[in-house]
Parts: sequence; C-alpha cells; structure tokens
Amino acid sequence: MRHVVYSVAMSLDGRIAGPRGESDWIIIDPEIDFNAMFARFDTILMGRKTYETTRTSQGGSMPGVESYVFSRMLRQADCRGVTVSDDPSQTVSALKEQSGKDIWLFGGGVLFGSLLELGLVDRVSVAIIPALLGGGVPLLPDVQRQTQLRLLEHQLYAKTGTLTLEYAVTQKQRRAKQRS
Amino acid sequence: MRHVVYSVAMSLDGRIAGPRGESDWIIIDPEIDFNAMFARFDTILMGRKTYETTRTSQGGSMPGVESYVFSRMLRQADCRGVTVSDDPSQTVSALKEQSGKDIWLFGGGVLFGSLLELGLVDRVSVAIIPALLGGGVPLLPDVQRQTQLRLLEHQLYAKTGTLTLEYAVTQKQRRAKQRS
Repeated sequence: MRHVVYSVAMSLDGRIAGPRGESDWIIIDPEIDFNAMFARFDTILMGRKTYETTRTSQGGSMPGVESYVFSRMLRQADCRGVTVSDDPSQTVSALKEQSGKDIWLFGGGVLFGSLLELGLVDRVSVAIIPALLGGGVPLLPDVQRQTQLRLLEHQLYAKTGTLTLEYAVTQKQRRAKQRS
Repeated sequence: MRHVVYSVAMSLDGRIAGPRGESDWIIIDPEIDFNAMFARFDTILMGRKTYETTRTSQGGSMPGVESYVFSRMLRQADCRGVTVSDDPSQTVSALKEQSGKDIWLFGGGVLFGSLLELGLVDRVSVAIIPALLGGGVPLLPDVQRQTQLRLLEHQLYAKTGTLTLEYAVTQKQRRAKQRS
C-alpha cells in the first residue's frame, strides 16, 4: 500500500518555520536530489494555512500532482487546481486504498497531528537543518499521545551538515493519558 | 578553552521530557558508552527544576564532579554537595576561564536558553530517540534569536535507531528581531 509521508525540513529544536513563518534559515544543500524526492509522490496533502502560503507564492498546484487541502472554511469554488475536503479521515483513508505513488503530507504540523492521531501517517522524513530557531511552528503541535518510530535510513549532506532521517511510524495506539 | 556542552536526549519533535516530566520514552541503546561520555566532563550546570528532579532521585551530586545550580530562590545552606549561583553569566564565564575538562550543561531547556543568549554555549550534543512525544519540555524554549550550528559528528546506534549528533554553536549574535 502507498504510504503517507510527512516530509519536511526542521531545525534541531523541532521547528518547521520561524515565528513569522520564516524559511530563510533553511540552507539548501546542493547535493540533495529534489527531483528524486518529488518523483516519489503523486499526491500532496496540505492544511489550510500551508495551502494559503503556497498559493500566494507558487499558485497552489504542481503539474502531474493531485493536491488536497483540508479545511472547514475554504470553498471548492475558490480553490482551483486543488481538491478541498473537510474530512481528512475519509479522504486520506480512500487515497491510501487507491493505487499510486506515495502521498506527501506537505504540512503543516496541525494536519500532521490530526492524521497521526487518526493512525494515517506511515512515515516521517525530516531534513535536520543545523540551526536553533528558539520559536516558531513546531514539527508536531501538542497532541494527546506518544508515537513510537523506527529509523529506516539516514543520510548526511556534508556541505551544509544537513541530515535527512526517515522513520516508520510503528506504534499508533499508545495514549499519553490512558482511557479508563 | 574548555567547552560548555548541552548534552541531552530528545524526541524527534524536540522534547527532552514528557508533559509530566516522563523519561520512559528514552530507550537506552546498549552500545552507548556512557562512561566515556561522562569522562569528558568534570563540571555540571543545572537549572533549579532539573536540580530538584535529580536531587530527589539521585542525591544531587556525583563523585568527582562539581555541580552548579542556578537559582534565585535556593539557598546555599539547603543544598549540600552543589554550588548555588544566582548569576549564570558571571559563574559560567569564570568556569570557562579555569582549566579543566568540558562542562556539562545538564539542563533544562530554560537554562540552555539563558546561556545561549549570553553566548556561553559552545556545543549542542543530542541523542535523537525514535519517538514523537507530542508535548512536554522543549529542547529550547522560546528565545529571541536564532542560532546557527555546525555539525561536527554523528553516530548511529543501530539496535535502537538512536542517532547522536554533536554541533558547534557557530554564530551567537543574530537576533530574530533586529535591534534598531
């Protein structure tokens, strides 16, 4: 089955954007093969905020890639080139049942938290940028349970000291506070 | 000159303890040589909360190691075996001028943030445990500036998927909000 992969760049202190959404701390290593990275996916999942950020700067969709935006506020008629859904559980479950390449959970952290709690995230793939932001958007906002991971691979990009790590989500049921 | 090293275990989402201080998510890899790790240091720095946690469980000091606790509330007379200081800047600057082994900034994140803002941290050494906590004590709480790092070394402990990373603090002056 195709995987839902949360793939992002983060600072060592677990931030994916600065306090005002900054990404200027992300130093792109010239050895990273982004084409190969993108070729793994044919579907993108985004929360509303991430969509609105990317729509402003890039137009909101990529050729050959189906994009889904999760929001209770957005109307489909206002969002060309993407599919709007207010039901992540149903939509993502259905996508996983279809054949295709992997599914890129593009962000942000809130959508990651929601899908993680639904047990719908299979992989977490982070590029650790050698910086401490000291504030900003967390990789994962507060959620009510811990998740165990298994490290699948890691790679060093020595020119910038960027480390890419890919983990499998191995245990999806343990809650920080057990239900009684 | 001896280095101040912030050396901690953290989850992939940048937490050093769970929401109630839990450390049960830290799976100790049998290949990690803690004796070698500890032998690097002869001095430990702690914030008050960390001190009170370790005092409860371990008595507050280790043989052959000088421990410093930073607090405006604690009184020296109540804290045997450690030196209490209310002036991290002066105390840590003086320690760095003395000869000796490296200095272990044991925690927590608040003390790390304070010393980082003072430009007194030289190394950040983290063991990334393959888990997402989704809440708890951050590696670095909110501070007003970004810090650039340089990756010095990394090592995989394959039995548990723990990665240890050591960074040099390379740039201490950049503030997230520039003073005008």
